[in-house]
Amino acid sequence: MRQASRLLPIRASRPGLHEFTDSAAEFVAASGISEGLLTIFCRHTSASLVIQENAAPAARRDLERYFAQIAPEGADYEHDDEGPDDMPAHLRSALTQTQISIPVSGGRLALGRWQGVYLFEHRRDPPERTIALHLLGE
Amino acid sequence: MRQASRLLPIRASRPGLHEFTDSAAEFVAASGISEGLLTIFCRHTSASLVIQENAAPAARRDLERYFAQIAPEGADYEHDDEGPDDMPAHLRSALTQTQISIPVSGGRLALGRWQGVYLFEHRRDPPERTIALHLLGE
Amino acid sequence: MRQASRLLPIRASRPGLHEFTDSAAEFVAASGISEGLLTIFCRHTSASLVIQENAAPAARRDLERYFAQIAPEGADYEHDDEGPDDMPAHLRSALTQTQISIPVSGGRLALGRWQGVYLFEHRRDPPERTIALHLLGE
Repeated sequence: MRQASRLLPIRASRPGLHEFTDSAAEFVAASGISEGLLTIFCRHTSASLVIQENAAPAARRDLERYFAQIAPEGADYEHDDEGPDDMPAHLRSALTQTQISIPVSGGRLALGRWQGVYLFEHRRDPPERTIALHLLGE
Repeated sequence: MRQASRLLPIRASRPGLHEFTDSAAEFVAASGISEGLLTIFCRHTSASLVIQENAAPAARRDLERYFAQIAPEGADYEHDDEGPDDMPAHLRSALTQTQISIPVSGGRLALGRWQGVYLFEHRRDPPERTIALHLLGE
Repeated sequence: MRQASRLLPIRASRPGLHEFTDSAAEFVAASGISEGLLTIFCRHTSASLVIQENAAPAARRDLERYFAQIAPEGADYEHDDEGPDDMPAHLRSALTQTQISIPVSGGRLALGRWQGVYLFEHRRDPPERTIALHLLGE
């Protein structure tokens, strides 16, 4: 049994869902670990993680619109140090995931056929983000 | 230290919460691993996981009604390839969990007294689902 | 490769976010494990976990207000065995996390600079809670 870990830098080109399934899969392949558990951890509170449908771009757009609606800019927030998108970013992060773990089998992520791993970028002007990857197995 | 894994097929009889705590516990018991970490991963984007109260059926019904309300059918979605319950299913999945890990101690899941593990089925006509179980420990 | 585990009792002084990053970090430090994976599991369905901004108290207050708004007391719930804050507590738990895993590197949690680990207490009169901590690594 052994471990591998890596910090993965990601910069989304725009707010919303940004797929990085391939980067996660490459990390697993390069590790030589074929059976185990991959943990993906987002080191931010204004961006988060989701696993979503990776076939239909319209589903991605609907999801982005939905979160813009239920945690909107312009509500009466006390905290707005970094602008009107500051507090909505924290709320959307709290409603989604900071961490996702995925079993690894036969050297591959045990994702379903239509599942992709996404960074959900909540800031209007996306900074570089760091995702911590951790793999345990053999 | 060793690992065990299994694909667990589940078909809910109706949309909503479907408990499978016993299947997860049986997998752990059969593995012979007494101290470790169980990871439960839902391989779908229109069904998800929650840990909820397993004593009061009314709590289950309220939870189902709540998600039907905050991510309703009939909103103005762009994506509806698989019908009016398609996009609400993705939204309800994003708001809950795709993966849950539970410590194992003394051969048992370290759940609280009232906690049950549920598949949250979001499609009206539930297909068979696959849950990936992964256990690491000794 | 080895494991450590502990049940951590926490009682929040009031409903809302209660940080316990230090207790989690102390458990990791005391274990002597420097590279691995920490899993934090909340053994309750009326309290939950979030990783949030730990710098601005106003962000914490906005987050508490937001969840009080989207899963309010006084809605027409069927389940209210333990009072008007019973069902909202389950809903707010379902919308946030029951479990969070954090990679450990160099003996430290791989949290981002502004991230703190919080118990999100949803009951008005907070009881003592138990958090299961599990660490795997070397």
